Amino acid sequence: MRTKAAVALEAGKPLEIMEVNLEGPKAGEVLVEIKATGICHTDEFTLSGADPEGIFPAILGHEGAGVVVEVGEGVTTLKPGDHVIPLYTPECRECPSCLSGKTNLCTAIRNTQGQGLMPDGTTRFSMLDGTPIYHYMGCSTFANHTVLPEIALAKVRDDAPFEKICYIGCGVTTGIGAVINTAGVEIGSTAAVFGLGGIGLNVIQGLRMAGADMIIGVDLNNDKAEMARKFGMTHFVNPKEIDGSVTQAIIDLTKTERDQIGGVDYSFDATGNVQVMRDALECSHRGWGVSVIIGVAPAGAEISTRPFQLVTGRTWKGTAFGGAKGRTDVPKFVDWYVDGKIEIDPMITHTMPLEKINDAFDLMHKGESIRSVVIY
Amino acid sequence: MRTKAAVALEAGKPLEIMEVNLEGPKAGEVLVEIKATGICHTDEFTLSGADPEGIFPAILGHEGAGVVVEVGEGVTTLKPGDHVIPLYTPECRECPSCLSGKTNLCTAIRNTQGQGLMPDGTTRFSMLDGTPIYHYMGCSTFANHTVLPEIALAKVRDDAPFEKICYIGCGVTTGIGAVINTAGVEIGSTAAVFGLGGIGLNVIQGLRMAGADMIIGVDLNNDKAEMARKFGMTHFVNPKEIDGSVTQAIIDLTKTERDQIGGVDYSFDATGNVQVMRDALECSHRGWGVSVIIGVAPAGAEISTRPFQLVTGRTWKGTAFGGAKGRTDVPKFVDWYVDGKIEIDPMITHTMPLEKINDAFDLMHKGESIRSVVIY
Repeated sequence: MRTKAAVALEAGKPLEIMEVNLEGPKAGEVLVEIKATGICHTDEFTLSGADPEGIFPAILGHEGAGVVVEVGEGVTTLKPGDHVIPLYTPECRECPSCLSGKTNLCTAIRNTQGQGLMPDGTTRFSMLDGTPIYHYMGCSTFANHTVLPEIALAKVRDDAPFEKICYIGCGVTTGIGAVINTAGVEIGSTAAVFGLGGIGLNVIQGLRMAGADMIIGVDLNNDKAEMARKFGMTHFVNPKEIDGSVTQAIIDLTKTERDQIGGVDYSFDATGNVQVMRDALECSHRGWGVSVIIGVAPAGAEISTRPFQLVTGRTWKGTAFGGAKGRTDVPKFVDWYVDGKIEIDPMITHTMPLEKINDAFDLMHKGESIRSVVIY
Repeated sequence: MRTKAAVALEAGKPLEIMEVNLEGPKAGEVLVEIKATGICHTDEFTLSGADPEGIFPAILGHEGAGVVVEVGEGVTTLKPGDHVIPLYTPECRECPSCLSGKTNLCTAIRNTQGQGLMPDGTTRFSMLDGTPIYHYMGCSTFANHTVLPEIALAKVRDDAPFEKICYIGCGVTTGIGAVINTAGVEIGSTAAVFGLGGIGLNVIQGLRMAGADMIIGVDLNNDKAEMARKFGMTHFVNPKEIDGSVTQAIIDLTKTERDQIGGVDYSFDATGNVQVMRDALECSHRGWGVSVIIGVAPAGAEISTRPFQLVTGRTWKGTAFGGAKGRTDVPKFVDWYVDGKIEIDPMITHTMPLEKINDAFDLMHKGESIRSVVIY
């Protein structure tokens, strides 16, 4: 069949809207009509050429929602008409990682996915002249139709709006999951969130859900504070507007008459800046502070600290897709949205048709959007 | 009173054996006759002058065992004749850290202890000319008698030999505790231990107790392997004798037909070398590897890695005194020794009277001892 897609022909160039060929689903695969897709910083990272693993031509996009059109041989858990969210972190429930009970990083199709291929080592997309087009993060939601493995699709309820729940395919789950799955925040905790973009806002609403008492947001841009407060931020620190270090400012904020040491119980980096990752670790509490890296750092960048920071009881962790097991957890996140437990609407600041997708990257570069969504 | 002590008059010089003045216990304090003390790398670190917090003159030593001679006003949990192990990490059971349930790093007397002082801000030791002598790590076990706060003494059973259980005051607890308290190793785990000195051997016996299936020891010195095998090491890697990196060698060792990713579930640095700390992290398993820093790094040294290592599921932690709560856990460790659950005797390779304590540092420098113990 043919479908319409925004194709990344080469790094650093705008996407091109074009008709492409799409082969039908092979065994274990599913054809999905994408109804909406978010545009995420990770798409921008790859499109810019900064991603050392980026390959072109490719159809980017990994934050979608849609409807099953056709299933391949052997597919048992999905049928045409099912509403689904594509999963860049699949959940096969059979590999050593899935069975470990300790991680969401399913390895069933990791090698081919990293190469922009389906599990059989080929692509389903091609140019009209036959040139193969690579898949991206196993999803390629910047196409109106795409093919995914059954294990990379979360079946969700039918009454949730695609143009909102697509955000659960990456940003929402990453931010909230970092709090509830990776950090395991308890009621009454103190926390600091570095970076108040889309991920940071979702960390903040995760902290509110988890019952944190003190939610300190950190950003260089004061304009970010208002929205963050709506999602639950209780204190705001702009590192440019304080004397001394941001770590000391946070430690001072959290000192109490009883606890003269200070530091947050949990901290989260949602910036991708390695110096900020260090600050996040070092403002966490001696003895038990847990700091979680969410942001994606530039290629080759390294984090550093004195080992004394860890020896005195801090833990340094990271999270991918918020530690969420996609087929198991994503449907729950959709329920929470429909039930009003989590908010998404205020974060979808812009919508556009596929033809205007390059505007979404412009808005991101200018810092004017939290999340842009393409509605097909 | 007067007692005999090995005094560190200045950095880089041998200890001097001399008579010193010792004031009796003030309120909340306890006078202890030290019966035996180990000589640890941390004593050497401070004596060498490398410790930026080292102050002189001081009476070093923090790995002792002895008998209560006299208790100060208000002391209720100890009485003359009780056998005790001094705790450089006290356990007040009242500070925010003790009450957190998340850390052993009691903060009740942290500030004064770090300055070589008793909680009231003075020293109990002085030269015969009246010059104050600083305490060390709150213990000063290189004196035949010493004064400690009640909260810095673990009461232990009376039938355990001082010259063996003194090692529980630091090395044994640090190594075994890192496994059972900090890492929380489960039965069937795989693990790597970097550095097969006294701490590394105790990590290994901790792993054996915890039921680890595969215990990989790493050391540059092949002579260390024999003793490590006796304590439970199942595989040995000498980084000088392999092609490629030690991390890859460990990953390859742990790959199985089912798990083609490889990496250990738990890794431990017992070297204090920051590059080794990085190797330890990076040989741990994608998705769930936990790496624990035990060694003390040189002043100013920093650990580094790519944040991707954490984002893909590894956790970087550290441990002090093996995460053990001294008054609660040390008596259990002594029971385990008496019951034969843990071994100490083969690790005490040398004993000597206080007059020969400088020989212990020489043996350490030459790498000829695992642990030297002074018997008073």
